[in-house]
Amino acid sequence: MQLLGIDALDRLIDELSRLPGIGRKTAQRLAIFVLKSESQYAENLAEAIYNLKKETQLCDKCFNIAEGSLCSICLDTHRDPSKICVVEDIVDIFAIEASNEYKGLYHVLGGVISPLAGVMAENLHLNELIDRVKNENIAEVLMALNPSTEGEATMIYISKLLSGLNLKVTRIASGVPIGSHLEYVDTVTIGRAISSRREL
Amino acid sequence: MQLLGIDALDRLIDELSRLPGIGRKTAQRLAIFVLKSESQYAENLAEAIYNLKKETQLCDKCFNIAEGSLCSICLDTHRDPSKICVVEDIVDIFAIEASNEYKGLYHVLGGVISPLAGVMAENLHLNELIDRVKNENIAEVLMALNPSTEGEATMIYISKLLSGLNLKVTRIASGVPIGSHLEYVDTVTIGRAISSRREL
Repeated sequence: MQLLGIDALDRLIDELSRLPGIGRKTAQRLAIFVLKSESQYAENLAEAIYNLKKETQLCDKCFNIAEGSLCSICLDTHRDPSKICVVEDIVDIFAIEASNEYKGLYHVLGGVISPLAGVMAENLHLNELIDRVKNENIAEVLMALNPSTEGEATMIYISKLLSGLNLKVTRIASGVPIGSHLEYVDTVTIGRAISSRREL
Repeated sequence: MQLLGIDALDRLIDELSRLPGIGRKTAQRLAIFVLKSESQYAENLAEAIYNLKKETQLCDKCFNIAEGSLCSICLDTHRDPSKICVVEDIVDIFAIEASNEYKGLYHVLGGVISPLAGVMAENLHLNELIDRVKNENIAEVLMALNPSTEGEATMIYISKLLSGLNLKVTRIASGVPIGSHLEYVDTVTIGRAISSRREL
């Protein structure tokens, strides 16, 4: 829809609409916010977008965000290089790092196997994972994919790929979230929490 | 939260978080999308943001978006210059224009009176509205503010300001949305639809 025939506005709405989770109406609202904000903000935002692409790249080894050819995690000598945590997306690394519970390396798959969405095993960074496991003396691969149908299937697929390579393959636990009330938790999660129960 | 210590990423997340309705997690996801997209997209988006501020401004008369000192609606000689439709925000003009039902001019208030949010009458473009009504030979002011508590209060406030100025002051109808089912419509809306009933 051409809005009032203002090209600059239509163009920004088009570009914003391509962002994930941003529909046309939200893009309109964001564009109008930019329009009404101080010039400084628009300049800062434009520059930040431009600089992110200019100053960063994906890590050659694990596909995390990096300022050079390797990311800060791969370069960190205080981390355990014998552990690889496999995640779907870079944002998952942020979530895991925030928990302060894991001190190994990562490997970003770039998605999960999802034939309906046209994502097959060869579209993911799986060969690179196998190469790392073979060449880097890895003792454990911890799979931390989202517990969706596709995530579960991908974890099974990866565990088959890794079988026979003489290493521990683990996955993060599924269960009742901390702080939740059982009566509000969905039945699949409760079922999983019970079948995965452990001794105290 | 410093994420992996990548300045360019943190800066973009900071700037994106300032957009309305974009929280920190969404900003992270958008920034990662920009990071993973082709360079061309980031450049296009940055340029579109920058150009919007460079090529547009607010209309001197009605505070709509404009490419010059007046917006395309104020400049359009085919529109009825004796009618002013008062709206809260520029996006509301888009919504009304899309309905193709109104062919007069507009006046963007820039908000509604909301003491809790610190927005008082003097923060809105109300004086400019009164000036227009007095100087432009206006026959009707149609108030199209959102039917919230603040919107209703602001409409009452404006109608008092305009009383005695010898013009028709109207407001858009509230009632049951077209295509809705009565059983799913909230009680306040149904009550309003009944008290505003009209003869057939």
